[in-house]
Amino acid sequence: MNITSSHIEEHNKTVKDDHQESLDALAHQLNKRNIDINELVEQAGAFQVAIPSWALGAGGTRFGRFAMGGEPRSLEEKIEDVGLLHALNHSSGAISLHIPWDIPEDTAAVKELADKHNLVFDAVNSNTFQDQEDQEHSYKYGSLSHTKEEVREQAIEHNIEVIKYGKALGSKALTVWLADGSNFPGQQNFGKALRNTEESLHKIYDALPDDWQVLIEYKPYEPNFYSMVIPDWGTSFLLANKLGDQAKTLVDLGHHLPNTNIEQIVAILLMEGKLGGFHFNDSKYGDDDLTAGSLKPYQLFLIFNELIEGTDGPEELRNQIAWMIDASHNVKDPLEDLLQSVEAIQQAYVKALLIDRDKLKDVREENDPAGAQEVLQDAFQTDVRPLLTEARVRHQAAADPIQLYRALGVRKQLIEERGADSVATGL
Amino acid sequence: MNITSSHIEEHNKTVKDDHQESLDALAHQLNKRNIDINELVEQAGAFQVAIPSWALGAGGTRFGRFAMGGEPRSLEEKIEDVGLLHALNHSSGAISLHIPWDIPEDTAAVKELADKHNLVFDAVNSNTFQDQEDQEHSYKYGSLSHTKEEVREQAIEHNIEVIKYGKALGSKALTVWLADGSNFPGQQNFGKALRNTEESLHKIYDALPDDWQVLIEYKPYEPNFYSMVIPDWGTSFLLANKLGDQAKTLVDLGHHLPNTNIEQIVAILLMEGKLGGFHFNDSKYGDDDLTAGSLKPYQLFLIFNELIEGTDGPEELRNQIAWMIDASHNVKDPLEDLLQSVEAIQQAYVKALLIDRDKLKDVREENDPAGAQEVLQDAFQTDVRPLLTEARVRHQAAADPIQLYRALGVRKQLIEERGADSVATGL
Amino acid sequence: MNITSSHIEEHNKTVKDDHQESLDALAHQLNKRNIDINELVEQAGAFQVAIPSWALGAGGTRFGRFAMGGEPRSLEEKIEDVGLLHALNHSSGAISLHIPWDIPEDTAAVKELADKHNLVFDAVNSNTFQDQEDQEHSYKYGSLSHTKEEVREQAIEHNIEVIKYGKALGSKALTVWLADGSNFPGQQNFGKALRNTEESLHKIYDALPDDWQVLIEYKPYEPNFYSMVIPDWGTSFLLANKLGDQAKTLVDLGHHLPNTNIEQIVAILLMEGKLGGFHFNDSKYGDDDLTAGSLKPYQLFLIFNELIEGTDGPEELRNQIAWMIDASHNVKDPLEDLLQSVEAIQQAYVKALLIDRDKLKDVREENDPAGAQEVLQDAFQTDVRPLLTEARVRHQAAADPIQLYRALGVRKQLIEERGADSVATGL
Amino acid sequence: MNITSSHIEEHNKTVKDDHQESLDALAHQLNKRNIDINELVEQAGAFQVAIPSWALGAGGTRFGRFAMGGEPRSLEEKIEDVGLLHALNHSSGAISLHIPWDIPEDTAAVKELADKHNLVFDAVNSNTFQDQEDQEHSYKYGSLSHTKEEVREQAIEHNIEVIKYGKALGSKALTVWLADGSNFPGQQNFGKALRNTEESLHKIYDALPDDWQVLIEYKPYEPNFYSMVIPDWGTSFLLANKLGDQAKTLVDLGHHLPNTNIEQIVAILLMEGKLGGFHFNDSKYGDDDLTAGSLKPYQLFLIFNELIEGTDGPEELRNQIAWMIDASHNVKDPLEDLLQSVEAIQQAYVKALLIDRDKLKDVREENDPAGAQEVLQDAFQTDVRPLLTEARVRHQAAADPIQLYRALGVRKQLIEERGADSVATGL
Repeated sequence: MNITSSHIEEHNKTVKDDHQESLDALAHQLNKRNIDINELVEQAGAFQVAIPSWALGAGGTRFGRFAMGGEPRSLEEKIEDVGLLHALNHSSGAISLHIPWDIPEDTAAVKELADKHNLVFDAVNSNTFQDQEDQEHSYKYGSLSHTKEEVREQAIEHNIEVIKYGKALGSKALTVWLADGSNFPGQQNFGKALRNTEESLHKIYDALPDDWQVLIEYKPYEPNFYSMVIPDWGTSFLLANKLGDQAKTLVDLGHHLPNTNIEQIVAILLMEGKLGGFHFNDSKYGDDDLTAGSLKPYQLFLIFNELIEGTDGPEELRNQIAWMIDASHNVKDPLEDLLQSVEAIQQAYVKALLIDRDKLKDVREENDPAGAQEVLQDAFQTDVRPLLTEARVRHQAAADPIQLYRALGVRKQLIEERGADSVATGL
Repeated sequence: MNITSSHIEEHNKTVKDDHQESLDALAHQLNKRNIDINELVEQAGAFQVAIPSWALGAGGTRFGRFAMGGEPRSLEEKIEDVGLLHALNHSSGAISLHIPWDIPEDTAAVKELADKHNLVFDAVNSNTFQDQEDQEHSYKYGSLSHTKEEVREQAIEHNIEVIKYGKALGSKALTVWLADGSNFPGQQNFGKALRNTEESLHKIYDALPDDWQVLIEYKPYEPNFYSMVIPDWGTSFLLANKLGDQAKTLVDLGHHLPNTNIEQIVAILLMEGKLGGFHFNDSKYGDDDLTAGSLKPYQLFLIFNELIEGTDGPEELRNQIAWMIDASHNVKDPLEDLLQSVEAIQQAYVKALLIDRDKLKDVREENDPAGAQEVLQDAFQTDVRPLLTEARVRHQAAADPIQLYRALGVRKQLIEERGADSVATGL
Repeated sequence: MNITSSHIEEHNKTVKDDHQESLDALAHQLNKRNIDINELVEQAGAFQVAIPSWALGAGGTRFGRFAMGGEPRSLEEKIEDVGLLHALNHSSGAISLHIPWDIPEDTAAVKELADKHNLVFDAVNSNTFQDQEDQEHSYKYGSLSHTKEEVREQAIEHNIEVIKYGKALGSKALTVWLADGSNFPGQQNFGKALRNTEESLHKIYDALPDDWQVLIEYKPYEPNFYSMVIPDWGTSFLLANKLGDQAKTLVDLGHHLPNTNIEQIVAILLMEGKLGGFHFNDSKYGDDDLTAGSLKPYQLFLIFNELIEGTDGPEELRNQIAWMIDASHNVKDPLEDLLQSVEAIQQAYVKALLIDRDKLKDVREENDPAGAQEVLQDAFQTDVRPLLTEARVRHQAAADPIQLYRALGVRKQLIEERGADSVATGL
Repeated sequence: MNITSSHIEEHNKTVKDDHQESLDALAHQLNKRNIDINELVEQAGAFQVAIPSWALGAGGTRFGRFAMGGEPRSLEEKIEDVGLLHALNHSSGAISLHIPWDIPEDTAAVKELADKHNLVFDAVNSNTFQDQEDQEHSYKYGSLSHTKEEVREQAIEHNIEVIKYGKALGSKALTVWLADGSNFPGQQNFGKALRNTEESLHKIYDALPDDWQVLIEYKPYEPNFYSMVIPDWGTSFLLANKLGDQAKTLVDLGHHLPNTNIEQIVAILLMEGKLGGFHFNDSKYGDDDLTAGSLKPYQLFLIFNELIEGTDGPEELRNQIAWMIDASHNVKDPLEDLLQSVEAIQQAYVKALLIDRDKLKDVREENDPAGAQEVLQDAFQTDVRPLLTEARVRHQAAADPIQLYRALGVRKQLIEERGADSVATGL
């Protein structure tokens, strides 16, 4: 399955006049607020969000999994899927791999394939939360934090191997998410488990190339239901500080206790120079891994508000932080879901760029919360869709990616190619 | 302090051209979607949200209260404040009183004053969660649910008295919120407390005029921290069913446990004919009583989506449900806060009206969640502010209420009239 | 694997003197409080908790599953496992089946096998949250609530078939847990989904034998992460009322939003005659399905306090409510976990029986919360373990079930019999 | 009101025989587990929990406050109340003051009075969350984090003044709890507010005597409902690290988001040498400030398990950590509530001392969660009340403090002395 430039052109032609009209109206409106729409279109077009290789198939819960059909059967087909997304929205130009789900046997060929789709390789992810066949020691009771040295060593080795794969592909970061923890009070010595983790991470850190970062995720619960070894940003931050400058914290929006103020965590980490990256998704109850922005779009906007506040301009913003999606698609077509996620992230980003920062600074200085709300709302209520459409069109992507995806019958073709029962590796 | 028609006219003149331009652009955009903007302007203009008399002064927490200045010192001044709001936004044409905080001594005069401001009296609220001076029995351990009959009788009498005041003013509903509950396991016999409450409510119900409703609030905690006698919609619904057709459930958006799906509760109550009214506000942690829409504007939109889904057109929607704000203003000027709340509620309402219901029905029937999201987002992303401005302007209210409020220096004038230390009765 | 009476006797002999000493000391202490320990021993011995057939193997999360070894490979082996538990604790004399995980092909033989182990069949459970091979319609988008009639019919038929299996085995109740719901706002019409569910349940209810009950579970989230069709007790109660006297609500302790006061729900349902049964487990975050009492033993005690308060004596308590465990064992040996769960449930039950009800009534009447706490604590702090040991010993079960289980090397033998890789059907 | 040694002796005589019997039985039982009860009695007797001066009157919520009667009208009467508690339980030998609620005008006299009651002064608390009369700048929008330097300076000065009072009384620690934060998105620049706080704390730290500590509290919400400047342990820890060795984190059990694993935070802080002290209380929903152990006694036990795990013996445990209660008494007599809190804390402490640490270490090493649960339960299920009674009796305190408190009619006498309407300063 390929989306060609003529597919795109034809589609874009059909909406051209309508789009231009909407764009002009928005440009005019923004102009009155002294905002140059072209500058924003450029920023939107430059912003890229990495697609997780493990989220291209149907996800599932512990209660079951319902097949989607046409799921990618190999790393190559996963790259092809991300290529489809990038062709449609020009904002998904990176892929984040999960080892051992996606071991690139022939790295040169894999890189070439990615190149062909204009894709680069974002952070690589290790996996020590499942046992693989022929694995010597089980991770049932932990990996980097395990009570037994031999298990820790195996997990360290695995991470170092993941770095090697990443190097070969051009990645610049290793993301470590530990499922380590305990299900019952008493099961684990919290202090020792943390010390073991620290020591293990040190060994991985020592194997890190100089221009790499290690991103440490945190999560309060699941798959363990009493404690997790790195439950919160404070613990991740503590570890990142002990490791050194190349270690940073990764924020997954779904990895927080109810009611957590995530945007404040983002601001604190930024101020301390320790925000390394994001896993975007949305959730209502726990780590629900739903489409970004599908439930709390205002929260996403507030997070981008902090990102802009805490960085020196869009270029630094883009380059210093790893932008990734982490999602699971139980009922939606994964590709449609990812298109919607990227669109929502871009909306939040551009709306946050619209915030009148001088005015915001003033009302904050004057302790005028009603004024601050007016400033934020003025940006959030603006309908920025024509601007995002324009960014796509200028980069030869689809004016309306989902509409074209459906019009082309992509899923149907993928099912024909790959079968209705193909199962992608991943959650 | 008075806002005159010439204040309004002058203000509206200054934004006239800009507004017309934005309105035309929106009308054009909606026209393409086959939506008549005038119909929506009419619905927005007809929608009224009642202002709580107890939320016109500075609120506080158990840790303290910081004065606002110029707070209304009497029921008359409270009516005057709501009059100011209604003059500014033409959407606050009702006031909801709390007895005994706002006893209308001379009901005829009070009604006349309200008439002068084009205000009607919405639901009246009883208060059995505080002890008043000269009160015979204390509500420390409950009111309608109390273990002692004499306390229950006193609370019943109070509610019947509140109905009398309401009748004199033209209200058509009594809102009962019970603070009754317990702070510690074992303190209360849950079953008996519920039975006592049921019996007490029956006696109040018997005193209800035929064209009145009694609205039963629920709340999971605070001021009691172990249990509340009516903790959830299920208990309120149970009581409303036992009482009869004139009893309904009132939903306060802040009265839910973390992560509750409030829009689903709204849908269930509508389907069962038991949704009586709303207390609008927003919150991040508990019953925070913040400005409506200030934290979760998408949730507010989803609630209105259910309201439109579950009723037969805007007129039924407006008339069968009591629309009220319940908020506390710890750091904002209460009048500014209320203007922002009403604006946010109207935005959610109008955006929900924009939803393409036929298409939504189709995608639901086809189990197409990505399609459903597109339908909702298409409405939510639309910038409806020009439409709401137009609704105000057509009714001789302010194009930008907060801007005019500030330009006129209303708060400053109120402080001059009433003093910097005046304290309104309320939370 | 069999646990014989001589295994038991030998084990009990080794602890006999110690036990008698502890029992005498407790009897003496209770005697001072005018409590007859023999009466309590009898109640404890009569109390039985059903074991779920789906929880005899290793559980898992969406992140993976770690094998336990020796898991039962068939319904027969599951019955054997429950038999082992019952032999050890004399309190697990019932089994609750999940269809189609445990279809009893030859019901007579299955019943005979159960008889041999002194087991009866508790509530049978339907499963419409997974697709089975050769199933015509998928439950991906719901079952009893589905938008398509043919899917609903299929799910109704399945439930009726489950009733048939249950009848053949001597069950007296059908438990219905629906995974139906939605993952995204807009996906589902809440009202229609509820009406469909109601209608479907009516058809199942019509197929219910006269001496049966249908128990309706509720759950706020998972496997759907935006809404569930029956999210809370209020919705279950609403449905149970519409269906009739044979329909009741089932409370699973893990199926609540954070901070829910479950004991109050129990009290309300009891007062309204609609409490049908329990799924016991414990949790810290969500539906964690951990060992009962392992995290919140005081909550479990408070629930039993309500159960005793709301029923007329132990016999009614035992007979009118279905007592079941629902758990998932990700890191513990399932049989050990279940032994610990039953022990914790019995502790809570017996401690609640120790509550001085007359005194509690008095302090409540006098609104003396400190006094109420003293009354509850007096019961809760009592060490009732000798009493439970005595109940087991009197019924020829093991003084210390887990100790004997380990001493006999049961798991090791099961692995030898069934293999290290056997996988039980279930979660 | 005085409780004399003859009051105590008479009371203790009445329960002497019963107590001795229970104690002997427990000693015998513990002896079998190779535990010397006398060692535990000594540890229990040495353990002291500081009483907060602000929690000796009736508390309230934002909805109201119900008077208790006999509340202390002055610092002297507060000391007298703590003296009553200490006379009754010999475990409340310290008082923690809140300035400016309890300014000791004549420090020598105040110290002498405390000496008379065998009380010492624990951590002193500053208060920058309320405005005092004649205060130049308001704390409405913050104190140490305020946007205006003059407000920050005022708050710094206040803290330094509190240190002075503390020095004069023999305190060794300053507790800083900041109510600073924001109610609305956009209101506050998170980064700047944190930097301001850091700088302000540095100035306070510089004024700290060498043998003092500054304890930094954290709290996620309330009195602000969108963000707090120090929302979680991570932020407190970050600040404590920046300040230096004399700065530590204080854990208030009620200051956490739903479902937080507090015992793990305790373990991490201990391991990093940054656990400074506790504010004990219990809660179901938020910062409910209920009696310690009244809702989650097992959590309290697990916290003490970590405390013992992470310290080198009882003496270090007692001396290196500040033990304080922080509670609010809305419906209970404050003195009864505090007696119950201290009792619950001591129970948790002694039960945690009973844990078989060698066995726990072994089962952890072997990854045996069921075994770990057995070890913990074996300690938790033990009825340690006779042991605590013995500790009191040996120190000439009351066998049953609450019973004696009621028998002596203490509250009645306090009301006679101080009036039914006296109001203590505090929450």
